Amino acid sequence: MLTDTALAGSLAGIVGQAHVIAAGGDQEPYLVDWRGRYHGRAVAVVKLGSTAEVAAVVRLCAAEGIALVPQGGNTGMCGAATPPAEGRSIVLRLDRMNRIRAVSPLANSITVEAGCILQRIQEAAAEVDRLFPLSLGAEGSCQIGGNIATNAGGTAVLRYGPTRELVLGLEVVLPDGTVLDRLQGLRKNASGYDLKQLFIGSEGTLGIITAASLKLFARPKASALALVALPEMEAALRLLERLRGTVGDRLGSLEAMSRGQIEVIAEHVPDVAIPFALDCPWYLLVELTDTLAGTDLRTPLEAVLGAALEEGLIADAILAGSEAQAAALWRIRHSVSEGSKRAGYVVSHDSAVPLERQAVFVRNTERRILAAVPQARVVMHGHIGDGNIHVLAILDRDRTPDAAAAAPVAQRINEIVDDETAAQGGVISAEHGIGLSNRDRLARVTAPGDLDLMRRIKALLDPQGLLNPGKILLPAPR
Amino acid sequence: MLTDTALAGSLAGIVGQAHVIAAGGDQEPYLVDWRGRYHGRAVAVVKLGSTAEVAAVVRLCAAEGIALVPQGGNTGMCGAATPPAEGRSIVLRLDRMNRIRAVSPLANSITVEAGCILQRIQEAAAEVDRLFPLSLGAEGSCQIGGNIATNAGGTAVLRYGPTRELVLGLEVVLPDGTVLDRLQGLRKNASGYDLKQLFIGSEGTLGIITAASLKLFARPKASALALVALPEMEAALRLLERLRGTVGDRLGSLEAMSRGQIEVIAEHVPDVAIPFALDCPWYLLVELTDTLAGTDLRTPLEAVLGAALEEGLIADAILAGSEAQAAALWRIRHSVSEGSKRAGYVVSHDSAVPLERQAVFVRNTERRILAAVPQARVVMHGHIGDGNIHVLAILDRDRTPDAAAAAPVAQRINEIVDDETAAQGGVISAEHGIGLSNRDRLARVTAPGDLDLMRRIKALLDPQGLLNPGKILLPAPR
Repeated sequence: MLTDTALAGSLAGIVGQAHVIAAGGDQEPYLVDWRGRYHGRAVAVVKLGSTAEVAAVVRLCAAEGIALVPQGGNTGMCGAATPPAEGRSIVLRLDRMNRIRAVSPLANSITVEAGCILQRIQEAAAEVDRLFPLSLGAEGSCQIGGNIATNAGGTAVLRYGPTRELVLGLEVVLPDGTVLDRLQGLRKNASGYDLKQLFIGSEGTLGIITAASLKLFARPKASALALVALPEMEAALRLLERLRGTVGDRLGSLEAMSRGQIEVIAEHVPDVAIPFALDCPWYLLVELTDTLAGTDLRTPLEAVLGAALEEGLIADAILAGSEAQAAALWRIRHSVSEGSKRAGYVVSHDSAVPLERQAVFVRNTERRILAAVPQARVVMHGHIGDGNIHVLAILDRDRTPDAAAAAPVAQRINEIVDDETAAQGGVISAEHGIGLSNRDRLARVTAPGDLDLMRRIKALLDPQGLLNPGKILLPAPR
Repeated sequence: MLTDTALAGSLAGIVGQAHVIAAGGDQEPYLVDWRGRYHGRAVAVVKLGSTAEVAAVVRLCAAEGIALVPQGGNTGMCGAATPPAEGRSIVLRLDRMNRIRAVSPLANSITVEAGCILQRIQEAAAEVDRLFPLSLGAEGSCQIGGNIATNAGGTAVLRYGPTRELVLGLEVVLPDGTVLDRLQGLRKNASGYDLKQLFIGSEGTLGIITAASLKLFARPKASALALVALPEMEAALRLLERLRGTVGDRLGSLEAMSRGQIEVIAEHVPDVAIPFALDCPWYLLVELTDTLAGTDLRTPLEAVLGAALEEGLIADAILAGSEAQAAALWRIRHSVSEGSKRAGYVVSHDSAVPLERQAVFVRNTERRILAAVPQARVVMHGHIGDGNIHVLAILDRDRTPDAAAAAPVAQRINEIVDDETAAQGGVISAEHGIGLSNRDRLARVTAPGDLDLMRRIKALLDPQGLLNPGKILLPAPR
């Protein structure tokens, strides 16, 4: 068995001395997750320069029995990219693998390396008059490899689908160091099992994504945005149904925030203006987009909202009169994570439930959390059209300075949310993944047969259990 | 071990005597594939009435070591639903499981049993003013379970994606008789491995799909259709690029036919009129659709085609002036399988290649087939925007009355097409699947590591090898 020093030397032999950070070096940013809840350690943090280097490092670690933790932009919500505190691991960073290998406006596809920052891909698409639709708060620093490994969601899922549906092909280094090349950017492929699907959303536990071929779309060239005040959550769903029946696939986003969620932002995020009275329980951003320049979207949006206002379905509506006004309204929505994080210790959730159950889910969950934990501030935001509502219970930092202090209360809240999610036929993670935060919850709400099949797939691909160990699945019961 | 008679009795005990066709009964339609190329035998054909019955039959067969061949509408092109001629098998028919369990225009989803005829699902969607976009020649008789098992394509993939992208959830009976319930119709789910993906496109070799939750879309309420005559294939791709840049996501279908393909239809399919001169090598159907009623699509389509005509990019264009005229043009396209089948013995292909390589692929393939097999009539049709071109070599029935007589020539042609497909970075099956017809070709063009991983997944899920044995993968080398 190689000593830590010898291992770091062997790694340097593969990637170059400059790209290995041994223990004692400046490893800290890579050992802790974005929320600061998990802290691990690593024999080395390795910055890889090519797929061949990834394969060589994986082979070395397979031979030595060293765990590998792939890490993208380290912006995940569930600790999936943090190395374990026990045992010997290395962290794999793919920042240097950030080339855009090819863009085809003809085929509407782009091929990128896993370390590409999401925003850079959006920009490269825009440069050829196309859209890469994945959009989320961390887009300025998250990496596409991590987005794919998490099957990330965001604000454009309603129209374009989650990350899985944007992936045309993948290049993956398997746990034995072989490279699976399924990178062909083909829309149609019925040639045997679609192996790449295994790796999307598996959080680096089955293989290391090194490159991807992704879908591009026609770029929206007209849009209209409204902020709507709602007397109750049901109104959002009734509005959705009307929009589906009238503007059809011009419906781009439908993002809800509870009044409390907006209050938290107003209190804690400087420079975010709230240009409307907070006298309703729910607020909704409705965005229509069209790929034909000059299309009038205001008129159909005004028509739907005007009728809804007249009937009392909605309480008020503001149509953005300019791009700047639209950006200011979007800014509120994009500040939810920052505002909540500053407001206290956040016990957050990522449930998706069938749309018909969304209103009752929201109501029951809030009532039960407040009954069990009266000191919690319960706020919510979510992607209404996807059934994905983030329920956040914010706890006072004085009483809950850290995860350990919050643990008993957090567990109680989690149980309530999981219980309501299951009762309404939903899933506990819609877009954030499982990582470390949610694996006991996943184990609690998932059918034993499904968990067993997931375990068998993990054992088939990674028999030594070296790839991102302990993520998604709890250690098997003995 | 149960005798055949005892087995038929046990099956009747599960599904009822009326729903078991024992050997000697009227099994014939279920023992032969649509093209009449494969002929198998079965201890029994069983018509199942519920998921519980499927599970009970699977458990019985698992205990007895009997192979199971799930069969949808039996319209597949590759023999994937035909039982083997050797050994003991039963054929599972799901015709009776044809209920639409739920439709939600709010969530844009529909939940159906696997035996539902595709057209019935399209109609159920239309009844609530929605679209289920999967559309293909056999839609009046194929079943959704088979469509999903094949990851079927069709003429709407360009806009809506292949079947995989239309599936929100699945219910599957696993080879041990347990039921995997992943039927939640949620758009977003990042809760562990997405197990349902395994079964989409696996042609019944890993599990038996019994129900599905599917996406619905806003229904197109305006459309414009043109038939365009092209001096060369490249022109289709240049036209596609212009359409993407102008009409964007209003582009619904882009279907190409070679002159020879249309001639075959004109010669062999009665009642199909060809209302244009056949003096160009390629013809293209271009359809724009919009979900807003009354949208003018003729003007932008005329603008693009007018400019292309002026520049000499295209040779001619006919815009359909009425729905009847549009239907008549679509009828030509929908007659390609029938016309080709009547014209002779068809060696057909289903390659997809990157769009940039499509024109060279078409040219090289035709040239090489004609050089090697001068008596072949080479015709083509395909889904230009997906890179999916069907190359058909039609052989004279007098010289090639059946598959055995055609075998040596077919193999030579297959090798040429496979070789060109691989040279252009494509795949041999875009939408028809592998089944029996293409498994040796798949083995030849697929990386050994990929094939090995497919085999290991098969062995993991179906260690006894009882589920649709011999399909997709050749028996493992010893």
